[in-house]
Amino acid sequence: MTVLILTSEEDVTADMVVAQLHKRGVPLVRFDPADLPGDGTLSAEYVRGEFRGYLSTGGRVVSMDGLRSIWVRRPGEPAAHAPEPSAWLTAESGQALYGMLHSTSARWMNEPGAAARARLKPWQLRVAHRSGFPVPATVVTTYPQVARQFADQYRHVVVKAVSGKPPHDPPMALPTTLVPPDADFADVAAGPTLLQRYIAKEADIRLTCVGEELFAARKTAAPGQVDGRYGETGHTWEPVPVPDRIRRAVTRYTELAQLAYGAFDFAEDAEGTWWFLECNQGGQFGFIELETEQPVADAVAQWLSIPAD
Amino acid sequence: MTVLILTSEEDVTADMVVAQLHKRGVPLVRFDPADLPGDGTLSAEYVRGEFRGYLSTGGRVVSMDGLRSIWVRRPGEPAAHAPEPSAWLTAESGQALYGMLHSTSARWMNEPGAAARARLKPWQLRVAHRSGFPVPATVVTTYPQVARQFADQYRHVVVKAVSGKPPHDPPMALPTTLVPPDADFADVAAGPTLLQRYIAKEADIRLTCVGEELFAARKTAAPGQVDGRYGETGHTWEPVPVPDRIRRAVTRYTELAQLAYGAFDFAEDAEGTWWFLECNQGGQFGFIELETEQPVADAVAQWLSIPAD
Repeated sequence: MTVLILTSEEDVTADMVVAQLHKRGVPLVRFDPADLPGDGTLSAEYVRGEFRGYLSTGGRVVSMDGLRSIWVRRPGEPAAHAPEPSAWLTAESGQALYGMLHSTSARWMNEPGAAARARLKPWQLRVAHRSGFPVPATVVTTYPQVARQFADQYRHVVVKAVSGKPPHDPPMALPTTLVPPDADFADVAAGPTLLQRYIAKEADIRLTCVGEELFAARKTAAPGQVDGRYGETGHTWEPVPVPDRIRRAVTRYTELAQLAYGAFDFAEDAEGTWWFLECNQGGQFGFIELETEQPVADAVAQWLSIPAD
Repeated sequence: MTVLILTSEEDVTADMVVAQLHKRGVPLVRFDPADLPGDGTLSAEYVRGEFRGYLSTGGRVVSMDGLRSIWVRRPGEPAAHAPEPSAWLTAESGQALYGMLHSTSARWMNEPGAAARARLKPWQLRVAHRSGFPVPATVVTTYPQVARQFADQYRHVVVKAVSGKPPHDPPMALPTTLVPPDADFADVAAGPTLLQRYIAKEADIRLTCVGEELFAARKTAAPGQVDGRYGETGHTWEPVPVPDRIRRAVTRYTELAQLAYGAFDFAEDAEGTWWFLECNQGGQFGFIELETEQPVADAVAQWLSIPAD
């Protein structure tokens, strides 16, 4: 049975998993929805209760009843590489492809509907609370006075994007930033703004969850550093054990969110508490594996290798 | 407790339900995500495990813990009416709004993740099979020779859009159409094509499912008519009883699809069999109610009125 990896051509993280699947002798097909129609082709028949389908790319054919799992890694937009792309061709190709894939009994990492919901940052905070994580007080608001009150109450607050992705038109970096005491909140009315109590952190924690396998890594923060993604600290990611309490909370979170994969970010404070910041259902793990030698790619390959029900 | 209706300003179908909710004395707020930020505002706080949120529009405020249900009727794109709209502001506003709404315990008609999956036409056919509906043989393919073989095998086949929505740039009507015997299938390679065995139909059936309430209506077809949405037949929609077998299949379908609302289309053949064509999770019901006097809007209002858990 075959593993289907939906991703675009240049994807080093996918390459790492592909190498592990090869080691295990598990057949796989790498498919970019952007190539459909064109190099990518499909056919699905629904006849008298029977469903038969197959997908083909680069001369490789995969039968839908021989599919064990689908890894939604970084798929291109359907039909993006078509000679005459259009919004309608994208809709038709996307419905054909994902409709066919949803007709199989393959296991998803992650199922697209669950993934879409799991991206909603305010929802993440709610689920994190319910799962037992400590979560810094947070407000999402379009009211300048609510933002002002929140900043006054908690004194040290950070502002960050609600949707997680920075603007790309024009492209702009949006690091999580400390709000200065004299900030003018008038512009909060122009777009929902997320403010969060600042956790004075000793370290960033990245916990990668692959099915039931958890890999935690810790990187000491530079004094006063706010966003771990930006700036050099001179420190590297080091593997750390996963506390039992965190393990239970992660399990509860991924159950509630119906995720097979999630990359959790925590801030570790001076007392050693891991504060939930976010869970990125499509988060990278290549940089963690390179620095910690934690076998995340192998765990992904192993999860994908389990036969479908 | 309040009902939240997400829809744009001009929506006659929503008006019908609003009238029924008024009759029942159930408070409601109508909110267009396109008005956020601007006339629409929101605020959500996540503090020590507690979640408090509210939404405001046109001077009305609705508290998230006072929300009994959310009707996703025809919402505008978040931030579409902002003075400086952008893809990023749409992402930020959408995440803030839907993230907050998903943090509530309100009941959804329909939950957005389930709705997205339920739109996948090939998946519908699979679920319809599993639910016990007769489904005409169907193929979705990018292979001209597969299309050709399917047409040869079934002789009378129709072609229709995979995604259900016609192209809007340029706008184009795409009625379901009989494929002529000498059709050239070469263009199938240019985009996934859905062919389905033609059901010589006596009538169109529209079955509207609202929670556990089912309303079936029948409209006699004109001789040789293929797409019930186009052309005058001289016939009107008449209420018909729902056969037990169909009721069981509808219940199974909406359970599998996790839908509170669905508009099912069937073709009734000469033997009286109802062939499943599609289930539109956001299908209109105004035209049915007007012609049949079936109280669909009232059923929607009743479903929305049930308090949240």
